[in-house]
Amino acid sequence: MAIDGVVALGFDVFGTVVDWRSSVTGEGEAFGREKGIEKDWSAFADRWRAGYQPAMEAVRNGTRPWTILDVLHREILDEMLAEFSIEGLSETEVDHLNRAWHRLDPWPDSVAGLTRLKTKYTLFTLSNGNVALMVNMAKRAGLPWDVILGAEIAGHYKPQPGAYTKSVSLLGLQPEQAMLVAAHNDDLRAARALGLRTAFVRRPTEYGPDQDFDTDAEEDWDIVADDFVDLAKQMGT
Amino acid sequence: MAIDGVVALGFDVFGTVVDWRSSVTGEGEAFGREKGIEKDWSAFADRWRAGYQPAMEAVRNGTRPWTILDVLHREILDEMLAEFSIEGLSETEVDHLNRAWHRLDPWPDSVAGLTRLKTKYTLFTLSNGNVALMVNMAKRAGLPWDVILGAEIAGHYKPQPGAYTKSVSLLGLQPEQAMLVAAHNDDLRAARALGLRTAFVRRPTEYGPDQDFDTDAEEDWDIVADDFVDLAKQMGT
Repeated sequence: MAIDGVVALGFDVFGTVVDWRSSVTGEGEAFGREKGIEKDWSAFADRWRAGYQPAMEAVRNGTRPWTILDVLHREILDEMLAEFSIEGLSETEVDHLNRAWHRLDPWPDSVAGLTRLKTKYTLFTLSNGNVALMVNMAKRAGLPWDVILGAEIAGHYKPQPGAYTKSVSLLGLQPEQAMLVAAHNDDLRAARALGLRTAFVRRPTEYGPDQDFDTDAEEDWDIVADDFVDLAKQMGT
Repeated sequence: MAIDGVVALGFDVFGTVVDWRSSVTGEGEAFGREKGIEKDWSAFADRWRAGYQPAMEAVRNGTRPWTILDVLHREILDEMLAEFSIEGLSETEVDHLNRAWHRLDPWPDSVAGLTRLKTKYTLFTLSNGNVALMVNMAKRAGLPWDVILGAEIAGHYKPQPGAYTKSVSLLGLQPEQAMLVAAHNDDLRAARALGLRTAFVRRPTEYGPDQDFDTDAEEDWDIVADDFVDLAKQMGT
């Protein structure tokens, strides 16, 4: 079953396409081994991600001008290094750690599902990640995007309407010709309110084994899928 | 021989990657056969392309606000239909003809060369074509871009500096880490003036058999190549 009239699929990326928590935890563990630092690197990953929405909120509400996610990630990291009492790192080392977000691994089904979907649909990123982050991630992970769109291109962070509407209009499409694919109900609600079609993909361990939100669809999204291969099948590819 | 420090290649597209003249001529011929209209379709293609720089110039000099190439192409086409006495077309037919620019065929070496270059470099479009045009062209022709950048994303038409500098900064790069690949000396001059590296690729029949400009390199560009496979070889891929 495809959805009539949909020609392009926009993807939330962090958590939907890539497993940021395991990846950032793994980056922290590797870093810790190299530097002889022992920390709870899962807690480190969770703390970093917890700073994400508040940092973007300052941009959304106009408290600060447009600032890309790499910079926001770095500001949170600088705070965290103090909190976790990690000291004496060089600028090169901190920058490398900050770019852990450029090196996130996809969920096991992501590349296979995207590769199938790409045969029929235009695949675009509709993420809050900046362009360089998205491009570097895709090169490393083999994510076959047709085009990188989303927050930096639009100058608006999701769930602000401009992030969705600018991405769709750059493709020369009407909202109903595009579908947002996301593991997050709030993201899909924002997209649906603007006329986009919606696909929820279950990622029930994105936030770790105890995740108790976004484990399932909270609305009658156009598609609800177990993973990207299931999504590809349901979209007729 | 690669070029030290270059990590991303930006491509001029019309004429450098795709053969617009043969493609638009072919689209005109197919259209004419279907509609029973006989015209000089090569002259039609040349006239359309001749309207391209003047149309962009009005945007560059501020006479009109930002306007995407699809719209400029359509305005030129509407003038041409009168000039060529082509009448009675439906809106759907004119729109289909206008989108001939979304259906341009690559030069025979383009996909092979890009596929090799992609193994080592980030490949981005640095074209005056709008995003939807670039995406549709790439899907149809199999052009393996990592990211679509250029005029519409920057809000500036080449050779205005912003078209180049915005594309490079979105990738998080310094100008010398990016190289423009183009069959046009003026485009390369603008890029070099901003610090980008430069590769000239010979496309001596882009404007047809009598082309008498841009047939060879006019400066000591970093790379001068016969085609994209030669470029791939010279860039160490």
